[in-house]
Amino acid sequence: MSTNKMWGGRFEGGPAKIMEEFTPSIGFDQRLAREDIQGSRAHAKMLATQGIISREDLNAIMKGLETIEAEIKAGSFEFKRSLEDIHLNIESRLSELAGPAAGRLHTARSRNDQVATDFRLWVRAACTRADAGLTELQQALFKQAEANLTTIMPGFTHMQSAQPITFAHHCLAYVEMFGRDRLRFADAAKRLNECPLGAAALAGTPYPIDREYTAIQLGFARPMRNSLDAVSSRDFALEYLAAAAIAATHLSKLAAELVQWCSPGFGFVKLSDAFTTGSSIMPQKRNPDAAELIRGKSGRVIGDFVALAAVVKGLVLAYGTDLQEDKERVFDASDALEPSLKVMAGMFADLTVNPVRMRTLANAGYPTATDLADWLVQTLNKPFREAHHITGSIVKRAEDLGVDLDKLPLEEMQKIEPGITADVMKVLSVEASVAARMSYGGTAPDRVREQLFFWREKLK
Amino acid sequence: MSTNKMWGGRFEGGPAKIMEEFTPSIGFDQRLAREDIQGSRAHAKMLATQGIISREDLNAIMKGLETIEAEIKAGSFEFKRSLEDIHLNIESRLSELAGPAAGRLHTARSRNDQVATDFRLWVRAACTRADAGLTELQQALFKQAEANLTTIMPGFTHMQSAQPITFAHHCLAYVEMFGRDRLRFADAAKRLNECPLGAAALAGTPYPIDREYTAIQLGFARPMRNSLDAVSSRDFALEYLAAAAIAATHLSKLAAELVQWCSPGFGFVKLSDAFTTGSSIMPQKRNPDAAELIRGKSGRVIGDFVALAAVVKGLVLAYGTDLQEDKERVFDASDALEPSLKVMAGMFADLTVNPVRMRTLANAGYPTATDLADWLVQTLNKPFREAHHITGSIVKRAEDLGVDLDKLPLEEMQKIEPGITADVMKVLSVEASVAARMSYGGTAPDRVREQLFFWREKLK
Amino acid sequence: MSTNKMWGGRFEGGPAKIMEEFTPSIGFDQRLAREDIQGSRAHAKMLATQGIISREDLNAIMKGLETIEAEIKAGSFEFKRSLEDIHLNIESRLSELAGPAAGRLHTARSRNDQVATDFRLWVRAACTRADAGLTELQQALFKQAEANLTTIMPGFTHMQSAQPITFAHHCLAYVEMFGRDRLRFADAAKRLNECPLGAAALAGTPYPIDREYTAIQLGFARPMRNSLDAVSSRDFALEYLAAAAIAATHLSKLAAELVQWCSPGFGFVKLSDAFTTGSSIMPQKRNPDAAELIRGKSGRVIGDFVALAAVVKGLVLAYGTDLQEDKERVFDASDALEPSLKVMAGMFADLTVNPVRMRTLANAGYPTATDLADWLVQTLNKPFREAHHITGSIVKRAEDLGVDLDKLPLEEMQKIEPGITADVMKVLSVEASVAARMSYGGTAPDRVREQLFFWREKLK
Amino acid sequence: MSTNKMWGGRFEGGPAKIMEEFTPSIGFDQRLAREDIQGSRAHAKMLATQGIISREDLNAIMKGLETIEAEIKAGSFEFKRSLEDIHLNIESRLSELAGPAAGRLHTARSRNDQVATDFRLWVRAACTRADAGLTELQQALFKQAEANLTTIMPGFTHMQSAQPITFAHHCLAYVEMFGRDRLRFADAAKRLNECPLGAAALAGTPYPIDREYTAIQLGFARPMRNSLDAVSSRDFALEYLAAAAIAATHLSKLAAELVQWCSPGFGFVKLSDAFTTGSSIMPQKRNPDAAELIRGKSGRVIGDFVALAAVVKGLVLAYGTDLQEDKERVFDASDALEPSLKVMAGMFADLTVNPVRMRTLANAGYPTATDLADWLVQTLNKPFREAHHITGSIVKRAEDLGVDLDKLPLEEMQKIEPGITADVMKVLSVEASVAARMSYGGTAPDRVREQLFFWREKLK
Repeated sequence: MSTNKMWGGRFEGGPAKIMEEFTPSIGFDQRLAREDIQGSRAHAKMLATQGIISREDLNAIMKGLETIEAEIKAGSFEFKRSLEDIHLNIESRLSELAGPAAGRLHTARSRNDQVATDFRLWVRAACTRADAGLTELQQALFKQAEANLTTIMPGFTHMQSAQPITFAHHCLAYVEMFGRDRLRFADAAKRLNECPLGAAALAGTPYPIDREYTAIQLGFARPMRNSLDAVSSRDFALEYLAAAAIAATHLSKLAAELVQWCSPGFGFVKLSDAFTTGSSIMPQKRNPDAAELIRGKSGRVIGDFVALAAVVKGLVLAYGTDLQEDKERVFDASDALEPSLKVMAGMFADLTVNPVRMRTLANAGYPTATDLADWLVQTLNKPFREAHHITGSIVKRAEDLGVDLDKLPLEEMQKIEPGITADVMKVLSVEASVAARMSYGGTAPDRVREQLFFWREKLK
Repeated sequence: MSTNKMWGGRFEGGPAKIMEEFTPSIGFDQRLAREDIQGSRAHAKMLATQGIISREDLNAIMKGLETIEAEIKAGSFEFKRSLEDIHLNIESRLSELAGPAAGRLHTARSRNDQVATDFRLWVRAACTRADAGLTELQQALFKQAEANLTTIMPGFTHMQSAQPITFAHHCLAYVEMFGRDRLRFADAAKRLNECPLGAAALAGTPYPIDREYTAIQLGFARPMRNSLDAVSSRDFALEYLAAAAIAATHLSKLAAELVQWCSPGFGFVKLSDAFTTGSSIMPQKRNPDAAELIRGKSGRVIGDFVALAAVVKGLVLAYGTDLQEDKERVFDASDALEPSLKVMAGMFADLTVNPVRMRTLANAGYPTATDLADWLVQTLNKPFREAHHITGSIVKRAEDLGVDLDKLPLEEMQKIEPGITADVMKVLSVEASVAARMSYGGTAPDRVREQLFFWREKLK
Repeated sequence: MSTNKMWGGRFEGGPAKIMEEFTPSIGFDQRLAREDIQGSRAHAKMLATQGIISREDLNAIMKGLETIEAEIKAGSFEFKRSLEDIHLNIESRLSELAGPAAGRLHTARSRNDQVATDFRLWVRAACTRADAGLTELQQALFKQAEANLTTIMPGFTHMQSAQPITFAHHCLAYVEMFGRDRLRFADAAKRLNECPLGAAALAGTPYPIDREYTAIQLGFARPMRNSLDAVSSRDFALEYLAAAAIAATHLSKLAAELVQWCSPGFGFVKLSDAFTTGSSIMPQKRNPDAAELIRGKSGRVIGDFVALAAVVKGLVLAYGTDLQEDKERVFDASDALEPSLKVMAGMFADLTVNPVRMRTLANAGYPTATDLADWLVQTLNKPFREAHHITGSIVKRAEDLGVDLDKLPLEEMQKIEPGITADVMKVLSVEASVAARMSYGGTAPDRVREQLFFWREKLK
Repeated sequence: MSTNKMWGGRFEGGPAKIMEEFTPSIGFDQRLAREDIQGSRAHAKMLATQGIISREDLNAIMKGLETIEAEIKAGSFEFKRSLEDIHLNIESRLSELAGPAAGRLHTARSRNDQVATDFRLWVRAACTRADAGLTELQQALFKQAEANLTTIMPGFTHMQSAQPITFAHHCLAYVEMFGRDRLRFADAAKRLNECPLGAAALAGTPYPIDREYTAIQLGFARPMRNSLDAVSSRDFALEYLAAAAIAATHLSKLAAELVQWCSPGFGFVKLSDAFTTGSSIMPQKRNPDAAELIRGKSGRVIGDFVALAAVVKGLVLAYGTDLQEDKERVFDASDALEPSLKVMAGMFADLTVNPVRMRTLANAGYPTATDLADWLVQTLNKPFREAHHITGSIVKRAEDLGVDLDKLPLEEMQKIEPGITADVMKVLSVEASVAARMSYGGTAPDRVREQLFFWREKLK
């Protein structure tokens, strides 16, 4: 904040030309306009209630702020670089509209506590938006899960066929992740919900203000307890960025799955025209651009966290202009995250599953080998490690013969382990394998149905 | 996890020499030994309770685990690189001790859910340790605050004298920050407190296990609801790292203050011999190395978050060996954070404040200019902006004459604003300035006393 | 790149509304307009030279591009979100201006090689601008160095007085750092200077193009050797970001020095009105905002590197839309770095040194203790370690008596080391200490003068 | 560096217990032992040559250092935590071996310039090792390229079939990337190759040392020009980390390709037993663990860069103990990078290509659509955009009929574009498509052969 005519009678030289480009924040902090007006209203009412300003002043201020709000909404408010930041832009216009009353609004307030208040209000709202976006995405995942309770797909570990699972189960894994993301944003919103207003520049103020009052007016749980902390701490922004970065890693993972599932080696899903794009040179392409872009944007959110953490790490109390960088990082993360959530929700809701391709690949790579091993343990009472060895040899034999496990002749198995009987066949199909995984949280449709029930309630 | 003899009958060639160096994780995951044994105990008991293994097997396993625990404690347990990881090292020794029962312990369990369980237990404990360390530091800060309720120091913004504050007030700002850090660790610990055990490789298991039972045995609130999520999600580790990184930025800030306060330009505090070091070449030095090292380590914790976030960002479901990297990042962050907290607490408890130097610098740079402006508003009823201009001119005059504000002759002030009376003098001392800041959260001793009261209760 | 009418006859449904907001890059890649036109000119000329398009087509294209260039310069060119990116925006306008010839310009070219070419041209220019900014800053530092060859200041290690140095010496240390930064940008510019144009979508093209020709036209050293690499590699952007991040850490360090030097505890320099700002609430403030902002922006550049590295890390060959994120990170870093360099140069050129404050603090903290130790070694032939011990005891004595080292009575020294003679006094002043450090690269004015001579030539 | 008995007579209290754990660096900086001895030898010889120490002292020192070197090699040297760091550990042992001569070795040297020297030597060697590892990997890639000049595989963009390419071409793209990585390490090694020794603590030294001499002895190009810069700058470490991080992103990409190629949806390659691992629970698995681990480790190297950049960003001149963190980050990155290169080289050399699977997938997804469009341009003289539209419609028709493009009846094409003749068939096979891409750098075997020739020379 800075190159400005409002500093009073001590500066002789004007700012350097380049400073007029460099220091103003109005280019981005105009996004705090709504919050700034909100904060000013609460502050003005409190000042009047406490008798610090007159009712007339209050009325003039409230009317002026209303006009400004309307002007901003209408796009007719002129944001001036020469007035540095959103606070001075609004204050200056308020002076025109409300005369000397505008000057009195600044009583017992500094830009330091003002910006901290505005910013907390903004981040609180961003947490709410993130929650809404995550919920919408959970709902889209939930619907695909509901529709695909028995759609069998390969479960991968190390991108190798491990065990067959269902698409419903897979979708619900992401519902869980995004559910925890929501909780993280909720915690962040709750923790930041304390009001810095009244901390003034850093030390509090001699005016008989009522910080309880403004806090409540602005929906904060309470005023912050320490004025130095109030104006200088940005851990709330870091916590928002961390929650966003973690959510973005989940989005990135899901996006990577989509890109993979669309690729010809998989062909698990087809994205709708509405969420794919073509190529300017290759007419046959149907590109999962949006998924890739979401994946790309997750790197950016990690970078935003790093940027602000590196800034905060280097400061001492109380305020330093380094902190002017905080808002852009948070805006950037929010601009990356929120549309990513919406696009992902739309794309997922809109996709078509190819159960045949999923089923085909689910059978590749001997995914029921574990079931065979388990059968050896349960039926022949082998210790698990021995069963594992036997199964390894049987898989090798099937591999050599080029057949799936449920197509390997019984006698081939018996050559390796004579105790094996025809009964083993019942565990070697992928359907049997899925149905058998009945432990709590397992992929058996009966179990997944329980989870669908749980989430149906939660996502109502 | 990997270059190992336990994979059964399908591998023909042995691992490449370099793989034996590259893939094993036993070098670091031996730190999970305690948690691994804890998890195995719970799993064994559950298997026996469910009738999956016999009582005899259970007894053999429990006795074997006890022996292993004792061996590890005594340092006589030999961790073998050829056995890759902590799980196989313990399993292999258990085989020696308990015979085939050991093999049966692996029933209905995979290394995927096993390591996820071990790691969650470890991170949960790390959260508890972080809380303890943060509390100890808060107590050290609190004590200095208590002892320095009226010790006046300069309050800086932009590292310029802004307004005088008290050292107590300054210390309590950090108590607030570290208080929020504690809450972040508490939230992380609560959110991660769900049990992955029983998710098996990724899809659950056909064995009739009781996941509720093992969860409760291990102090988890509940079993995780989705087996894919259980084995693959590492947002709990990221959340721990984010909380640690944010706490580390606070430590870094406080460390930077100490380094500055010790520097000859300030001389605000003297660190004890116990927490400073000398120089090998400059005999006069008393270096705040420890503070610098703490400051340096905060960069590392940020890097740890980045490293794991970049890894997780790139994965798909379910498990990939990339995740082997998760533990070292968390260990590294914990090893950086925990001693930093202890050293900072010790250093702060041990430091000597130099109130004379603080008071001297608190008076430099016209720190009561705001008080003058406030007086103009309150006494002469000037709008704040005008008062700000008048004060600017008066400061300039004092600057030109080379005197402090409370030494500037009244008539000089009156030349600039004729309405000023001798009454103004009562607000121009730093003591008056501090005492006047009576708003909630302000630096006035009466206000800070309230906060001391609040924290005394909390930190008991 | 993407939600567009140019993909031909295969798409049935239109894009989702939100996709029209999400995927277009024109909002930022319009900054590549100049480079895009430059690339198209070279490509068109080559196509004509090779007989792939006619002379008439070439003329129509060249004329059209000229018009577009003028329109963009005049601000009358309408960038349309519906046309996604800079390439299609220009192509579409070219169609209006040049008719079917515009369509033929796209022969043997894809947006993949086109954007890689544009971007390399842009980054190359950014390296040149960074070099210019760094040079300007070196010059400002150099001038202060020249003017302060004998201005003594404290040399700090651990922010403790270590040994006296000169301000010239200090300034030149930064000249060295920024000199290496310049070399890093030069290396980056040289390494990226290969032309991707002609790689087409990823595999090259059947048209008989001449890649040597376009490479030369665009100032590249040669065409890239591998078409897959050409369209997919972004290590050149990462290398730029790394160079920028490293330079930014140097800027941050210098900014931190300025903030400190301006603070009342130091008072080493006074920044000019042109490069400082006032406070809206504290009339006496002269804030080094610009320095703080520069320091803050360095965190951002580190974040930019992280963001792109995390993106690139997760990709496979060849092109993925994740890479659309590359440009914003580079633009962001360039927008942070370049004005920071300019402002820092201006601020440094404009500052006033306070040699008295520097000299005063240079004497604090026994900075000539090493000289005393060296005297003991050289004159009394003590081993260094013993000399170090003796000096430590003498410093302690001086500390107890509250005097500087050159004010400690000789007999006090002799009590500790009887061999000390009056001759020792000649090494105990800060001037003597500085003058004595005659080793190459040392702080003695004679040595620093050599370095000034070196840099005067280099910075001409 | 720090909790130590060598600071002489001024410290009264001993260090706190926890400090003895916290501050020593010997746990990791013992890896600088070789470099430390190397530096001491050069320094000792110089001191003797300059007459600062006697020939006897030199002999005693050289003999002592030889003994120490042998002890370290034999593992019999005891590194003591109480002696803090590698420098004091060696110095202390040297005192035992060489008596007072050891003390004189410390003349005109500080730990500040000593550690900077050691560390530059280490990083220089790390650059050389990285170059060797990268070269080995290039050779492995080259050999696969040589063997697969005509092995056709799908070329992907957006993980969708774009155009067919050859495996040779694909491998060579990585050869290019790793080639640039080598150049980055070479540049880093060259830029850091200046000698800090003789800068002493920060300001140079009064002793008549010869810095040219020590620089040459240690293989440095020259002594550093500014003593402050010499002891405090770590941009050389950051540059190494940046080069490592960029190389790691390339490794990560290649690793991701391998993981994908091994997955059942692809089946492009089979890794050897020597470089894969099995599963403890799923006997059929052949996991590309090593590739995943390499991919995971790339996140870590990015984190290492961030960690050090954040540290350096926050410092002022000259030395601060924060810099003690520099070595571990560099060691960590080197420990991640070097084995990753070796393992990747081994794994790539050892893999078996499955040309049938590659060829099958190369044909999926209408990869010759661009060829059709090009044919329309070249034969029917259509503008590219129109050709693109026609091709889109033809692809859609083939999709509807469920046939590949070269199996679509001519009349179907003619319904869409009557001008199409049977001649078109010659461009619709993947072999034709590959062979046609004859532009420089293209995928046509004739072109790739040129590149093989180029690299064969370079990689000799």
